[in-house]
Amino acid sequence: MIDDRRDAQTTVQTSTAGHIFRIIRDRGPLAATDIVRLTGLAKSTVSVHLDRLVGTGLVREEVRPGGKRRRLKVAESAGVVAGVDIGQTHLAVGLLDLEASIIVDRRESLELASETPETVLARIAATIRELAALAGVDSTRLFGIGVGVPGPVDFELGIPVTPPVMPGWDRYPVASFLSGEFGCPAFLDNDVNVMALGERDRGAADKRGAFLWVKVGTGIGAGIVAEGEIWRGAKGAAGDIGHIGIDGDSTLCRCGNRGCLEAVAGGRAVAARAEAAAASGTSPFLSRELAVPGARATPDLIARGATHGDEACLRILMDSAKAVGDVLAKLVNFFNPSLIVVGGGLANSGERYVASIREAIYRRSTPLATADLVVKKSALAEKAGTIGAAVLALDELFSHSNVGRLVRRDAPPAERSDTP
Amino acid sequence: MIDDRRDAQTTVQTSTAGHIFRIIRDRGPLAATDIVRLTGLAKSTVSVHLDRLVGTGLVREEVRPGGKRRRLKVAESAGVVAGVDIGQTHLAVGLLDLEASIIVDRRESLELASETPETVLARIAATIRELAALAGVDSTRLFGIGVGVPGPVDFELGIPVTPPVMPGWDRYPVASFLSGEFGCPAFLDNDVNVMALGERDRGAADKRGAFLWVKVGTGIGAGIVAEGEIWRGAKGAAGDIGHIGIDGDSTLCRCGNRGCLEAVAGGRAVAARAEAAAASGTSPFLSRELAVPGARATPDLIARGATHGDEACLRILMDSAKAVGDVLAKLVNFFNPSLIVVGGGLANSGERYVASIREAIYRRSTPLATADLVVKKSALAEKAGTIGAAVLALDELFSHSNVGRLVRRDAPPAERSDTP
Repeated sequence: MIDDRRDAQTTVQTSTAGHIFRIIRDRGPLAATDIVRLTGLAKSTVSVHLDRLVGTGLVREEVRPGGKRRRLKVAESAGVVAGVDIGQTHLAVGLLDLEASIIVDRRESLELASETPETVLARIAATIRELAALAGVDSTRLFGIGVGVPGPVDFELGIPVTPPVMPGWDRYPVASFLSGEFGCPAFLDNDVNVMALGERDRGAADKRGAFLWVKVGTGIGAGIVAEGEIWRGAKGAAGDIGHIGIDGDSTLCRCGNRGCLEAVAGGRAVAARAEAAAASGTSPFLSRELAVPGARATPDLIARGATHGDEACLRILMDSAKAVGDVLAKLVNFFNPSLIVVGGGLANSGERYVASIREAIYRRSTPLATADLVVKKSALAEKAGTIGAAVLALDELFSHSNVGRLVRRDAPPAERSDTP
Repeated sequence: MIDDRRDAQTTVQTSTAGHIFRIIRDRGPLAATDIVRLTGLAKSTVSVHLDRLVGTGLVREEVRPGGKRRRLKVAESAGVVAGVDIGQTHLAVGLLDLEASIIVDRRESLELASETPETVLARIAATIRELAALAGVDSTRLFGIGVGVPGPVDFELGIPVTPPVMPGWDRYPVASFLSGEFGCPAFLDNDVNVMALGERDRGAADKRGAFLWVKVGTGIGAGIVAEGEIWRGAKGAAGDIGHIGIDGDSTLCRCGNRGCLEAVAGGRAVAARAEAAAASGTSPFLSRELAVPGARATPDLIARGATHGDEACLRILMDSAKAVGDVLAKLVNFFNPSLIVVGGGLANSGERYVASIREAIYRRSTPLATADLVVKKSALAEKAGTIGAAVLALDELFSHSNVGRLVRRDAPPAERSDTP
């Protein structure tokens, strides 16, 4: 969301090149005539700005055999960005081109709660270097780094703020550490915000729509996208749906409250119920599977039980999905999105889980709010965090004012006048 | 919220005068140097646009004895707008100046459910004419009309869409009827959206912040403001919090669902409980008061009982406030606003009601989301709808592109170049 008043200065002074670049990034490849039509600018103006954008190396002409008109697109190979997805039980790092396509990536296990920020960040830095070597990318071509973490973030400062599941990280300078390590800008955001951005650019969502990206994994949270931009709220806490209370439920949550959605329906709650079902014998499937040394009650395992006809497994998953859907039904009445994308370990366990969420939303929201509402699984699955973190970096690197500055650096002084 | 891509054409071509006008409207009176600072434009550019804006009659120089610099403000008397607030039990109409100050207004009873759109609109047209005569305003100076109704609206078309409490109004051309009647633009929106706009410009809210305007009256609904603009949602249904379900509650709602907030805590539910308390004798105060012929169980009467120490009255109000606060607590976790303004009949019954809502929100939202959250009564009380409807009209009349067009109409052809 762009506040037209706060951004008046930027918009009036430097927006033209930035606007054109954003249009190319969102809809390219485009001919110059398309850009004239989309912006309402004069042909000559568009032409001047396109030459400058090509001059910066950010935009290139698409080579099409036999094509007559030049068509412009983002010069996807002009540089790379790193996308880093820090989860409670995984670390995923990727190098992506300027269109957020993965060049090379790696996913490893991580016990976030038992690691310090220093060790995790050193591991991230080493992984970025290894991946760059693997892909033959020179470190000077690393334009920026985006990072998603499972907790609240002060986006401007690039620091986590009292994150419940990563206690040693409170106010740790994550972005500035990585920025210093690689000599390029780094950006930090909440994992679900980052995943929502990935979905907007590379997944199931319309780039300009309003949608919710709901993660149902170990934690539960939502990224809110309104008119193409992340809605962070007054304190950056927007989307914290895991701690919405279920009326009348008294399950104790790790946050200290009772009846939080996450305590009832999140990954830990589901695993605990599965272990109880294995122990009590109500789930023959889980009793057998969890008897194997090292076996864990993962969403995948429980989903497999459900598919094999184990009723306790099915009940555990459906109860979780219904609780999530009942909360989302309330939020649909309030926010009226056109799309809800569901991702995370439980959502990825199978279509049946998302179908139950969908059913609960449709049953309990108003007909007008659900008239055209689509509820579906993330198209990016477990790559959502890596891709989204890269998109976060690209969004910030290629903001209107930054592109404006890049272009103006090359422009002759006479062009810097602000005469409208 | 302005979508920078969708609005690229408008922004690039016509925004400068519109930006300057909006800044004057939001923060004026301002000296030209303030505008230079706020926009980053050149002095000469600002000066040219100010002359043109003064030329259109929309902006005037403030006369201050002894003031050296010219200070610009909206020429509030250049015209009037009509604000129309259609409620379930009232009709309020006002004429307001271009700064949304009420010149003259009138509030009457209305039984909306038993009237046709034709009779209500005829009454509105007659009232506007009577008020104009009363204020000595020529009808040619009526710039526009804003209308708020208690139901969903297709904002672009200016029509109600399947409004539950005004069944005869479905798709009735409200805006175009009034527009045709007075020969000026007319705009229609949901009543709570309109009240939120009024609060933004003339009430308790920051003009650029994110806040919820929550009406707790016969109906319950919320207007959502994000970065100064109304959030309407995909189908214009955003903010429909009256039909959010309370988990486990089975009270039948007029919408056909069970446990809706409005069915549990709205004006009808409160009145029904008060009548039951009068009949059963559990409220001596209500038994006495409601025995008077023509007496009704209004929020004011029940609040008076609570003030007089009648426990049943207090319990009825506090139960309603707690139910509203419990729902708002969930929405605070999701949306993280900085301000919640509460208005409507029940909220206006006394500070105690709003205090109970506040308490419920603080008890059940996350600490980060409530860190700086303010919950307070509307500063506009029962004028919120009239003022808000006028602000709606002013917002639309004075949008960037409209002001741009007004100014460009007066500009010499050479100035129409779109060279940046």
